Amino acid sequence: MDEPSSTPVEMTETSSLIASDRVEGTKVFGRDGQKIGSVHNFMVNKRSGQVAYVVISTGGFLGLGQAYHPLPWSIFSYDEQQGGYAVNVDKRMLDGAPSFRPDNAPVFDDAYGRRISDYFAATS
Amino acid sequence: MDEPSSTPVEMTETSSLIASDRVEGTKVFGRDGQKIGSVHNFMVNKRSGQVAYVVISTGGFLGLGQAYHPLPWSIFSYDEQQGGYAVNVDKRMLDGAPSFRPDNAPVFDDAYGRRISDYFAATS
Repeated sequence: MDEPSSTPVEMTETSSLIASDRVEGTKVFGRDGQKIGSVHNFMVNKRSGQVAYVVISTGGFLGLGQAYHPLPWSIFSYDEQQGGYAVNVDKRMLDGAPSFRPDNAPVFDDAYGRRISDYFAATS
Repeated sequence: MDEPSSTPVEMTETSSLIASDRVEGTKVFGRDGQKIGSVHNFMVNKRSGQVAYVVISTGGFLGLGQAYHPLPWSIFSYDEQQGGYAVNVDKRMLDGAPSFRPDNAPVFDDAYGRRISDYFAATS
């Protein structure tokens, strides 16, 4: 019992797997290596089981002023050292990207997905 | 507002995507079409973003007597009609499969993954 923890880490995260109920809060680092947000959730294709988008949470405190930004999975790479994800995106790009407030969720259909993918196409 | 709901369904589930924080509770149907359990979580490869295993929850009430069974993603198919997953597994096979109690989680390493995949290899 080196680290106090209320959750059994063994079943939720290993070197290669992460449980879907544990992805929230995973740090996301931007182009300059600084944290630009944290994972809110993964949007998973129900049939293929492939993560299509990562919704990251930025700013805000206790939900106030918080914004969600969906980013394509294809621009994410896992950074073992930092224990989080790296994306080749800076804060300005993120500010101009599609986003929504927690109380104003979009319909996550194909058209919305294309809008996200098109916006970030230049960064991948 | 046809359906009362406290969560914005639009952002969490569409015809092709499901949010990682909404997979829990998705029904899983067995070989005979009867419900054999429900999704507890997805175990996702952190690097590829591909779901590797689905941990399904069976039996129990309010957590009592509940067992978790990890099944390989490869044996799952999405059943649009039923709004859940179908697996070619019956209750007897599930009873003999690797399982764990909520308070006795295994280390989800490669060896454990192979044990699961080997057990279910005959069903895919």
